[in-house]
Amino acid sequence: MSTDPAVPIAGNRFCIVGGASLVGSATAGELLDHGAAEVVLFDNFAFGSEAAIEHLNDHPRLRLVRGDVMRLPDLLRATAGMAGVLQLAAYMTLSMDRDAWGGLDVNIRGVQHALEACRANAVGKLVFASSNAVYGYGPGVAGELVEGTPFHSAGAPPAAILYGASKIIGEQLCRDAHRKHGQHYVVLRYSTVYGERQHYRAANALYIIETLERVRRGEPPEVFGDGSETKHFVYVGDLARANRMAFESAATDVAVNTSGPAPVTTLELVRLVTELAGGGPEPRFVGNEPGKVRLTSGGAFRIAHEEAARAIGWRPEVDMREGLRRLIAWRDSNEARAAA
Amino acid sequence: MSTDPAVPIAGNRFCIVGGASLVGSATAGELLDHGAAEVVLFDNFAFGSEAAIEHLNDHPRLRLVRGDVMRLPDLLRATAGMAGVLQLAAYMTLSMDRDAWGGLDVNIRGVQHALEACRANAVGKLVFASSNAVYGYGPGVAGELVEGTPFHSAGAPPAAILYGASKIIGEQLCRDAHRKHGQHYVVLRYSTVYGERQHYRAANALYIIETLERVRRGEPPEVFGDGSETKHFVYVGDLARANRMAFESAATDVAVNTSGPAPVTTLELVRLVTELAGGGPEPRFVGNEPGKVRLTSGGAFRIAHEEAARAIGWRPEVDMREGLRRLIAWRDSNEARAAA
Repeated sequence: MSTDPAVPIAGNRFCIVGGASLVGSATAGELLDHGAAEVVLFDNFAFGSEAAIEHLNDHPRLRLVRGDVMRLPDLLRATAGMAGVLQLAAYMTLSMDRDAWGGLDVNIRGVQHALEACRANAVGKLVFASSNAVYGYGPGVAGELVEGTPFHSAGAPPAAILYGASKIIGEQLCRDAHRKHGQHYVVLRYSTVYGERQHYRAANALYIIETLERVRRGEPPEVFGDGSETKHFVYVGDLARANRMAFESAATDVAVNTSGPAPVTTLELVRLVTELAGGGPEPRFVGNEPGKVRLTSGGAFRIAHEEAARAIGWRPEVDMREGLRRLIAWRDSNEARAAA
Repeated sequence: MSTDPAVPIAGNRFCIVGGASLVGSATAGELLDHGAAEVVLFDNFAFGSEAAIEHLNDHPRLRLVRGDVMRLPDLLRATAGMAGVLQLAAYMTLSMDRDAWGGLDVNIRGVQHALEACRANAVGKLVFASSNAVYGYGPGVAGELVEGTPFHSAGAPPAAILYGASKIIGEQLCRDAHRKHGQHYVVLRYSTVYGERQHYRAANALYIIETLERVRRGEPPEVFGDGSETKHFVYVGDLARANRMAFESAATDVAVNTSGPAPVTTLELVRLVTELAGGGPEPRFVGNEPGKVRLTSGGAFRIAHEEAARAIGWRPEVDMREGLRRLIAWRDSNEARAAA
């Protein structure tokens, strides 16, 4: 194990576990652009997709490994010779609701396996993708969410609490590995990711796509409640940069938030998507659907990212207007290509 | 599955998972005294001990099953025909620190297995032993700890957070099973247990024994910090009664605190143990030991148990003076027996 927690990108090899994904593919591009000798995308394609990594297919320094984070031998082989490992593989809340056993296995045992593979192969640094779900849900989640904010769960659905608690455990397994055998790691608590190659799994990011599709069909987009509910997204390119900087920085044994420049309300988001899509009908206000897992927050909140600037020098750069513009341009060019 | 969440004790069969334990043996006695047709103590004896159940050995309605909560077939067989299952099997914080993999397996997969066994065998009700660790540690844990208090973890050691989060997950797996297939359950959030047949695993309860032993040897008992730190114990007999009442009551899909009549400070506790032991030297104030897992709280707190009265009609009855008197009498008679 290197005693230097700073892992330069150029000339080094990196494995992205859960790599055939929105964040995985963007981070692979970022690392390759910064001179990585090799990037291994490790995925079992349960949630990952060929579409997410299509644009990287012919890259000479990219290697795709089909393997499962639940099988330690797969990970041991894929991470041999790596300077850094990015652990992205996870069930999110909607999948956790359908299959709690599978979700807890991947989100907990998967992190144990990634850490064990790093230990066995003397990987210099692990970057672990945690989530603002470690602050929980409901009325308690309001104001500035900083790294010491407790986990609120009163009134939240089981799957949401299971997801948040599984991320808390993943983070602590990293801390434990640091204490027990000096494993360098950085935990990044992602807020909801959006951007080009957007997938359909995350409850909140899905809402952007749903809204866009309704507007494109000329239907009024739906706003739940009174539209004042806060969401705080982060653009995928900003996250890819955060992952790269987490490797490069001297930071270790730390967990920081990585959120976009500013939160938006649901109504602001819907109006912005409508405007960027070239206009459309006024939104329709609807009640919350009973029984559906929808992650609502009680009060207005902001996920503070100042600690990330201190720890790894990262600040978000792409605001919602620019990020949504890129997402919509990507969807439009994709649809034009599909139609051609 | 019975649609009646109230499971009478008399004439019914019960399985206590992790039964060869302080709480398990006391609850077995309580259920047998109330006419249970059979009580099965299921244990792998990793933490459980023969000593804990010695006094029940010849009971005609008690059956000991050696099995492991990590092996679902063992549990499926042990819980066939049971009206109720009490899930006690767990790693606590000190064991979690030594073996995080084992602890997360037992505390999460163990609960999944217990729930699966209940579903497969149509067991009427599961009582799950959770913990006040779901409120976490550190300065945030102060004042009245009620069932909606969030999980504080800033500054706590990894093992303590892993333990608390594993209990949060166990609770949510119960809620999930209730939602998905109507499994009746009651979660009891035990505070630190003490009493006759006290074991040596729980960090805080161990402190009572350490103090008693120092006083008995004529050494000054040790008080960490200034002695103002709060602890809120519960007497084992009160918990056995809470477990019984959780089965009997019509409550389901609920989580409540089960704490003793009142909290004590460390200094009060040490003075009480010294007095009940027949007197001894004045306590010695020592700093906190660095590197040792000791679960400290920041402010004064009280674990509110009023919700348990509403949900299952339970109130703690045995105060620290009486409970410690019984614990010390049991230790003295044990030592007299060992010496004879």
